[in-house]
Amino acid sequence: MLVVMQAGATDEQIAAVVRKVEQLGFRAHVIPGAQRTAIGITGNPGPLDPGLFEGMPGVIEAVPVSKPYKLVSREIKLEKTIVRVGEATIGGDELAIIAGPCAVESYEQTMTVAEWVSRLGVKFFRGGAYKPRTSPYSFQGLGEEGLKILAEVRARFGLKIVTEAIDHESADLVERYADIMQIGARNMQNFSLLRRAGQARIPVLLKRGMSATLEELLLAAEYIMAEGNYNVILCERGVRTFAQHTRNTLDLSIVPAVRRVSHLPIIVDPSHGTGRRDKVIPLARAGVAVGADGLMIEVHPDPDRALSDGPQSLTLPMFRELVEQVREIAALVKRAEQEMAPM
Amino acid sequence: MLVVMQAGATDEQIAAVVRKVEQLGFRAHVIPGAQRTAIGITGNPGPLDPGLFEGMPGVIEAVPVSKPYKLVSREIKLEKTIVRVGEATIGGDELAIIAGPCAVESYEQTMTVAEWVSRLGVKFFRGGAYKPRTSPYSFQGLGEEGLKILAEVRARFGLKIVTEAIDHESADLVERYADIMQIGARNMQNFSLLRRAGQARIPVLLKRGMSATLEELLLAAEYIMAEGNYNVILCERGVRTFAQHTRNTLDLSIVPAVRRVSHLPIIVDPSHGTGRRDKVIPLARAGVAVGADGLMIEVHPDPDRALSDGPQSLTLPMFRELVEQVREIAALVKRAEQEMAPM
Amino acid sequence: MLVVMQAGATDEQIAAVVRKVEQLGFRAHVIPGAQRTAIGITGNPGPLDPGLFEGMPGVIEAVPVSKPYKLVSREIKLEKTIVRVGEATIGGDELAIIAGPCAVESYEQTMTVAEWVSRLGVKFFRGGAYKPRTSPYSFQGLGEEGLKILAEVRARFGLKIVTEAIDHESADLVERYADIMQIGARNMQNFSLLRRAGQARIPVLLKRGMSATLEELLLAAEYIMAEGNYNVILCERGVRTFAQHTRNTLDLSIVPAVRRVSHLPIIVDPSHGTGRRDKVIPLARAGVAVGADGLMIEVHPDPDRALSDGPQSLTLPMFRELVEQVREIAALVKRAEQEMAPM
Amino acid sequence: MLVVMQAGATDEQIAAVVRKVEQLGFRAHVIPGAQRTAIGITGNPGPLDPGLFEGMPGVIEAVPVSKPYKLVSREIKLEKTIVRVGEATIGGDELAIIAGPCAVESYEQTMTVAEWVSRLGVKFFRGGAYKPRTSPYSFQGLGEEGLKILAEVRARFGLKIVTEAIDHESADLVERYADIMQIGARNMQNFSLLRRAGQARIPVLLKRGMSATLEELLLAAEYIMAEGNYNVILCERGVRTFAQHTRNTLDLSIVPAVRRVSHLPIIVDPSHGTGRRDKVIPLARAGVAVGADGLMIEVHPDPDRALSDGPQSLTLPMFRELVEQVREIAALVKRAEQEMAPM
Repeated sequence: MLVVMQAGATDEQIAAVVRKVEQLGFRAHVIPGAQRTAIGITGNPGPLDPGLFEGMPGVIEAVPVSKPYKLVSREIKLEKTIVRVGEATIGGDELAIIAGPCAVESYEQTMTVAEWVSRLGVKFFRGGAYKPRTSPYSFQGLGEEGLKILAEVRARFGLKIVTEAIDHESADLVERYADIMQIGARNMQNFSLLRRAGQARIPVLLKRGMSATLEELLLAAEYIMAEGNYNVILCERGVRTFAQHTRNTLDLSIVPAVRRVSHLPIIVDPSHGTGRRDKVIPLARAGVAVGADGLMIEVHPDPDRALSDGPQSLTLPMFRELVEQVREIAALVKRAEQEMAPM
Repeated sequence: MLVVMQAGATDEQIAAVVRKVEQLGFRAHVIPGAQRTAIGITGNPGPLDPGLFEGMPGVIEAVPVSKPYKLVSREIKLEKTIVRVGEATIGGDELAIIAGPCAVESYEQTMTVAEWVSRLGVKFFRGGAYKPRTSPYSFQGLGEEGLKILAEVRARFGLKIVTEAIDHESADLVERYADIMQIGARNMQNFSLLRRAGQARIPVLLKRGMSATLEELLLAAEYIMAEGNYNVILCERGVRTFAQHTRNTLDLSIVPAVRRVSHLPIIVDPSHGTGRRDKVIPLARAGVAVGADGLMIEVHPDPDRALSDGPQSLTLPMFRELVEQVREIAALVKRAEQEMAPM
Repeated sequence: MLVVMQAGATDEQIAAVVRKVEQLGFRAHVIPGAQRTAIGITGNPGPLDPGLFEGMPGVIEAVPVSKPYKLVSREIKLEKTIVRVGEATIGGDELAIIAGPCAVESYEQTMTVAEWVSRLGVKFFRGGAYKPRTSPYSFQGLGEEGLKILAEVRARFGLKIVTEAIDHESADLVERYADIMQIGARNMQNFSLLRRAGQARIPVLLKRGMSATLEELLLAAEYIMAEGNYNVILCERGVRTFAQHTRNTLDLSIVPAVRRVSHLPIIVDPSHGTGRRDKVIPLARAGVAVGADGLMIEVHPDPDRALSDGPQSLTLPMFRELVEQVREIAALVKRAEQEMAPM
Repeated sequence: MLVVMQAGATDEQIAAVVRKVEQLGFRAHVIPGAQRTAIGITGNPGPLDPGLFEGMPGVIEAVPVSKPYKLVSREIKLEKTIVRVGEATIGGDELAIIAGPCAVESYEQTMTVAEWVSRLGVKFFRGGAYKPRTSPYSFQGLGEEGLKILAEVRARFGLKIVTEAIDHESADLVERYADIMQIGARNMQNFSLLRRAGQARIPVLLKRGMSATLEELLLAAEYIMAEGNYNVILCERGVRTFAQHTRNTLDLSIVPAVRRVSHLPIIVDPSHGTGRRDKVIPLARAGVAVGADGLMIEVHPDPDRALSDGPQSLTLPMFRELVEQVREIAALVKRAEQEMAPM
């Protein structure tokens, strides 16, 4: 249920609604909007009676939410969410580019990429300190040592750090060192970890699972938001199909599909989405053209010697090429979408 | 095997190689290039001895072809194929747009769309006279009557006609009335029909099957080319996956994948590829951004009353919007690809 | 719509209903049952008024059919269809086994397998004379010469011949030489060929397409039945998924799913369904255990030298092993299903 | 690498090899066999020199392992693993049946099912105390209270308890109360949880992820075994495909595929594998016929009122029917496999 407040509702009126919700044993989510504030209610086992709230001062109406997901839904918040990290944003007017190596391998490798990336005006840096690897015998990341290198990248270049947490323990450290906590595709339905991410003070980048439906992706985001963390960024990174010419099949249609039903920003990862270096630039262009809020790109100074995902990492010159191309397309799409009447 | 001729090889020298191939009981495919002519050999059950040809006048070398597909391969023809229909082209510098209703339903409906489409400078018109429908009880198309309406579209508006053949009988008629013969996704491995298309005097638009791999798509094209028709256009139209937010999952990564191994042009059909009207424009933009040579778009004056595929047909104003957006992106991609060193 | 006749309805009363249907411009399908006859109506563009028929002599009621498929549905015919070829049956009490080489390669190869197979009491023989091959350069079958060898198999061993038609031309020949016309997976939605099969005087074995849904499979069968051929056998042969440990993923759950909604028999092909010899026996056992009416098995005297599909063909001793194992399971399942109350 | 000891190697000789491995910084896994003991080595970043071990007393040879998975492989242990829980076994001669409700909902519901199940001679009881649910607003299980009810089931009926852990915290409790720790499909690549399961003193039942390949499943098991817990049972529970007639597509071919490369037992879950009550018995029969070591079945006294997965739960009478049918098939398959020469 969503309780919609009047435009001039006072803080006290809002607080009264929240208290009422909590007295009923449910959870209240205050969602400020450009025009008015709304209060989402979760935790109720069945439909609630609108009359419980509609007589309260400052309340316009109490409306049931028809979808299985609530806080992620446009029904509850019409305006698009803009995730802010300092002066950088994801979901706003500017195309957000997150770039860096698959894994933090060493101080030198990381700094080399970070310097390049920052020179191109890119604002977000990625790099894995905890790597979920298919085999227990593969390189699993540098752990906290890697996080410290990432913190150094922030200190030196002002880049915002995006890095993955794989369990409660690493989540504690990621929250301490990084700016955005990534939840990987393999953990998209690790509900215990999603709840932990929902308690983090930093935004969460949630990657779509390899065979997750749109609804499952949104409900995974709902797990995070239900804990009170409303800064969630979705990420398409390819799904598993019979096709073999790419490692995964990048499903770009999910971008407009998310836009239609959710206010959350969504970005595209063509590096994992294709698994092949020569496909990354074309699919990055396509991801921006389809309307994504940003891109996540793997870049490595020497991809053939990368400890993980070398075959899909761009060289630094290729990455510069990519950035130039996608910025032009982003400008064009932004203009087109502003001209079009909302569909 | 591919026999490569010298730059100044005479017609007689070329003819001599062809005769030699035919005497051996195989088939020779003369492939003219910008610099030199090559002769592809098919029908040989095993590898051939290069010595059979390398001593002949005008021959530079005879090289084995390593892929299961030969005539579609870049190994045999490095330059991209440009399919020409009168002054219109697919695979050349200009983005090819093929638009029209799913099915030819009536004279009026068809002419209305054709007039709109031609005014926007679009050069190709689509419309089904023979419709392969999942149910035997659905509208199956107007047949030859539909083809006559399409011929009238060409006469009045100068549009090139693209329409589907579903068996030998309809192929005879399509060849008589239309400019490009379409082979639908459900018939991509109807090898008897592919052979018939290979004997047609008009180009063939070959749609990817719903679960076809890249190699299967190329080998289907090879069936057509092996019969002597080298004007083949490939078309991505979505594949079948677990995802349910679109009717099919549009696999745009196949565009750069085809580009890498084949000289054939490839276009994208976001109408079938998504099955949802509100996804067509974003995915059309993405299709052009990924580097496709063209688009195939369903347009209907009154989609809600369409006899087939109404939910995915654009209204006329939406189509105009699409054309404007994709032309800008096409110009940008063309420029970018010319600047980039070949990867 | 289904017009249900009284138990004692006369031939004349039935004929009157048929005439009435045809006068309305639709098609009537007389479906005799154990208790009563029913008349299915197809070709009507929308719902019919039951009153058109319910007043006629001998008619009990006229009921609309709710599914998109009609003639294949249990709504129209509750009793299971038993396809009879001479004294042999598919869909009856006995497990039907269809065995033989993938392709008819030579007289000797074919006779060797046929002799073995017939000695084991198997009643149906398979062998391709027309092979739909992914590559135009692969062995495409012996054509009519192959059909003559198959006819010889019937003459010498009394085996019923099952072989594939790939277009109208081969369908004419298959109808002349064989007992059951097979439509392959790649042609499951070649609707022109399905119509031709519907006009054949012999039963049709329809293989499920590589990514066909249950409904698409049933509607493909409906195409055949709508032309008047009610002897259709369905066949599960594996679908395309991300999994790589078998060539296709055998979807045995379609067997009870077909049973629930259709009266048509369904068999399982574990040879194509797995593509790996060592998986054929276990999956054949599973196919029978799940309740299939029969099996289709590839057997070759020397699989390593087979011209097609060698890796999935059983040796003759392995096939004997298979037959013994599945017959025991079939008996057990038959007994179990008779004891169980219908679900 | 695998170090193979002589038949009469002494404990001291074995211990010396283990010490040598550990001095090199790697991990040694002592694998007792019927004839001889072997020592698996993991943790080595690259190939080892066999000469390091081949000169040591009691060593026959040191052989490299060619697969990415090692401890799960038949290369390292030829004999099938039999997981023992008291007198009950999985992977031995007897078909293992694990049955119970999807979730532990109440004391009464659980005891009702347990009594039924135990009367049929079933030895393992399932029931979720921690439920990974797609929506954060669905019933998430009774937690430790549920585990206490399960412990009571063991005390009263002697049933062995199988229940799911979803994170480190629940794993601690599951290890305390249950006999087998289940890792669910959504956590198959939650590597942190797999490592925790590898440190448990009880066997682990590992369910295949919804789009996991055979290799990924085996490497997930390898994560558990690499920590020293060699009692792992695999479980096929359906994968995600385009098909819609069942909730998932049960991929029975993975049973013989696992058998070929691994010594671990594998069972089948037709309840999740189909998601439809009327498909459970046929697919259970098929699972046993294909050669699975056991079944996992959801049973509920009143499925329509189940708090989760009601549509796929069997009623108690249906479950009895299932048990009778599959035991006959199991006996038949066991006999057949003993008669057959190994392939």
